Amino acid sequence: MPPFRDPAPKGSLFDRLRGANEPVWLSYVRHDFVRRLAAGTLPEPAFRFYLIQDYLFLVQFARAYALAAYKADTLDDMRQAANSMRVILDDEMNLHVKFCAGWGLTIDDILKVPEAPQCMAYTRFVLEAGNAGDILDLLVALAPCVVGYAEIANRLVADPATRRDGNPYREWIETYAGEDYQQVAAKAVAQLDRLEARRAGSGRFPALVKLFAGASKLEADFWQMGLDAA
Amino acid sequence: MPPFRDPAPKGSLFDRLRGANEPVWLSYVRHDFVRRLAAGTLPEPAFRFYLIQDYLFLVQFARAYALAAYKADTLDDMRQAANSMRVILDDEMNLHVKFCAGWGLTIDDILKVPEAPQCMAYTRFVLEAGNAGDILDLLVALAPCVVGYAEIANRLVADPATRRDGNPYREWIETYAGEDYQQVAAKAVAQLDRLEARRAGSGRFPALVKLFAGASKLEADFWQMGLDAA
Amino acid sequence: MPPFRDPAPKGSLFDRLRGANEPVWLSYVRHDFVRRLAAGTLPEPAFRFYLIQDYLFLVQFARAYALAAYKADTLDDMRQAANSMRVILDDEMNLHVKFCAGWGLTIDDILKVPEAPQCMAYTRFVLEAGNAGDILDLLVALAPCVVGYAEIANRLVADPATRRDGNPYREWIETYAGEDYQQVAAKAVAQLDRLEARRAGSGRFPALVKLFAGASKLEADFWQMGLDAA
Amino acid sequence: MPPFRDPAPKGSLFDRLRGANEPVWLSYVRHDFVRRLAAGTLPEPAFRFYLIQDYLFLVQFARAYALAAYKADTLDDMRQAANSMRVILDDEMNLHVKFCAGWGLTIDDILKVPEAPQCMAYTRFVLEAGNAGDILDLLVALAPCVVGYAEIANRLVADPATRRDGNPYREWIETYAGEDYQQVAAKAVAQLDRLEARRAGSGRFPALVKLFAGASKLEADFWQMGLDAA
Repeated sequence: MPPFRDPAPKGSLFDRLRGANEPVWLSYVRHDFVRRLAAGTLPEPAFRFYLIQDYLFLVQFARAYALAAYKADTLDDMRQAANSMRVILDDEMNLHVKFCAGWGLTIDDILKVPEAPQCMAYTRFVLEAGNAGDILDLLVALAPCVVGYAEIANRLVADPATRRDGNPYREWIETYAGEDYQQVAAKAVAQLDRLEARRAGSGRFPALVKLFAGASKLEADFWQMGLDAA
Repeated sequence: MPPFRDPAPKGSLFDRLRGANEPVWLSYVRHDFVRRLAAGTLPEPAFRFYLIQDYLFLVQFARAYALAAYKADTLDDMRQAANSMRVILDDEMNLHVKFCAGWGLTIDDILKVPEAPQCMAYTRFVLEAGNAGDILDLLVALAPCVVGYAEIANRLVADPATRRDGNPYREWIETYAGEDYQQVAAKAVAQLDRLEARRAGSGRFPALVKLFAGASKLEADFWQMGLDAA
Repeated sequence: MPPFRDPAPKGSLFDRLRGANEPVWLSYVRHDFVRRLAAGTLPEPAFRFYLIQDYLFLVQFARAYALAAYKADTLDDMRQAANSMRVILDDEMNLHVKFCAGWGLTIDDILKVPEAPQCMAYTRFVLEAGNAGDILDLLVALAPCVVGYAEIANRLVADPATRRDGNPYREWIETYAGEDYQQVAAKAVAQLDRLEARRAGSGRFPALVKLFAGASKLEADFWQMGLDAA
Repeated sequence: MPPFRDPAPKGSLFDRLRGANEPVWLSYVRHDFVRRLAAGTLPEPAFRFYLIQDYLFLVQFARAYALAAYKADTLDDMRQAANSMRVILDDEMNLHVKFCAGWGLTIDDILKVPEAPQCMAYTRFVLEAGNAGDILDLLVALAPCVVGYAEIANRLVADPATRRDGNPYREWIETYAGEDYQQVAAKAVAQLDRLEARRAGSGRFPALVKLFAGASKLEADFWQMGLDAA
């Protein structure tokens, strides 16, 4: 079993935001949905409801990265955002399409499902924070998702309680623990540090903490939505 | 008892959007929360939870009218949006402040209450729709609230089942049924018609119907949030 | 003759932004257009062209304050932006309407004049910077106008070279040197300091300097547009 | 010599917008800058000034397509906008980098050049129109550039007055007349028609005509900026 690899180095902006929000952060990354997914005991309807909503969520997150590309100050930040949008639209959504195909669902079927309030609340909160604020606000609101999934998956693969053989959710875990996704998360962590240096200072930290708290809470609600569907 | 006055004339854009969304519209304007408010049987904690969240909601709605003023094509539309913002910040919020004072709560107390997910979902949905789209999208997303409250209050004052004497929520009903608020709603209805003439056409109607449906559903969820709090 | 009153105290964010951009700042506040306006020797067609474009400019600036009200983090900042919008729409534009009436021009006549490229360049630069960034970016881009006019007018009333008697532009000078406008400028300076404390830090200063430089340059171009029209 | 191929079919929205703005459209597509580029008689400093500004312009246009991806209603429109952004960042800018390398200029050299007012005016006008309005407003404001260049290049290759041998600007003409770019323009024309069907109607046409006129005028100013630099 590999040791836990933290996608965020000590002292990085992400690490400090997480540290300033410990209770809500733990309620998200150690949510029952996650534990049961790791144990392979999550009821299929819960995962299915979650995954379909997560597809609708990713449509909005692709829009959020488009907005980040618009709001970027440099060609590098623009290219990084454009790449994140591409990864979501071309790669990450494929995981969902594969799982859904296993249940006999096509993309058109998924796109007809109404967005759950929890999906709407989180995605619109992020997009609105990004419109009202700048690229740093937007990326801080996105971080609990982008970096959080990398942290969660790394915890699971390092945890002896995680079942591998016969776990129907193994592919989910391995996708997010995989090198490709970990690279995306590491780049997101580094970008936050660059943007903090350029657009912030200690005075802005409390406002960013509050934003991070709001987004983390809405992520925890999103897991709960899955559990409640079973 | 006065007859019911419909704030939206037959054939107006608002009337057509409402007609195209009848089930969700009725689930909102005839919600149990509304019936019990009219009967004076709504538990105080339900109303209190609702009213505090509605204050937080109005902060976001004032922002939405600021965005509408920015997105206006004409000085008249800019002035109308600026006026709506002023009415919310200076008048409508006072109703809330008065009720809250009766419960021993100050504005600072209210502003410390975390926004409920249902408040967040609706307000951010509206603001985001307005950012992504144009002033017509924004005002259509706002309409179920602005015009809907005028319709609800008019239904209640025209309904023999509504209790007046000793109803603790009488002031709420009379504020929204009052001439000042009815004028605001009537102007909003007329503005939608002007904007439809200038920025839309029959081709755009289905997209507006969908937006109106989303906002109406989130309004119904907002009442339910109040009931669930009791 | 009153001594020069600087609308921006030493060490305020505005003062530091101005100090970091001295050449372009002086090219704006000491522009020939300003000198000749003070001397009363500015050709009327130059002033007239400027004033009509400045009216179109104010329409866009009212939109910019609407955007600032949307982007505000606090009710106080929202109210300050809403008030600035009101001052522009209800008061400042009246100065223009009065001058234009003297030339036989109505508001409708003015609104039919095409925006000059210099007007378009400055106003859209400000609005776009505000959309891409946060409220601090937006207010920094607005500051050379809002605070700059207060500084310019104060310089002129403190300058022995300024002609008062028979100067056709005396009312322009006295409006911007007047207590009402000076209060607006002083509040704008204080708001920038509050926002810097809340949303920035030393790391962000270079980006704000660049934004301030861009806006100051476009203000100087705006004066030049007036001179070139004569 | 190939016959002129019009990138916009008769009756398409683009064709109708162009038709409603004939004088300003012709002042742009038949501008002296274009004629002299075709004849190979454009002074090199004029082309050089233009090309460097056009690179800075493309940075802003990549941002505009990012904004369009955010504002898209469908995954298809989002992907088309993301692809346009990629074409600009990865392909179109290469033409500029090659020309600039021939003059001994690197990308870093170009990015240090201040944006000319004409570049700022056009790009910020487009971005701001897109922020204030919806995706249709944004794409109509972009169309004079995207589709106009395809039309101009097609006119030049079909025109006997165009010099091929020894024309230093031949690569510019052939890039925009080339199949790759023509495909981009054709898709942009088709997308406008789809969006008009979904988000507009005859009522909106006058507002779109005005937007198209503003953008076409700013394109003509951009050519003039090149000529004036020689």
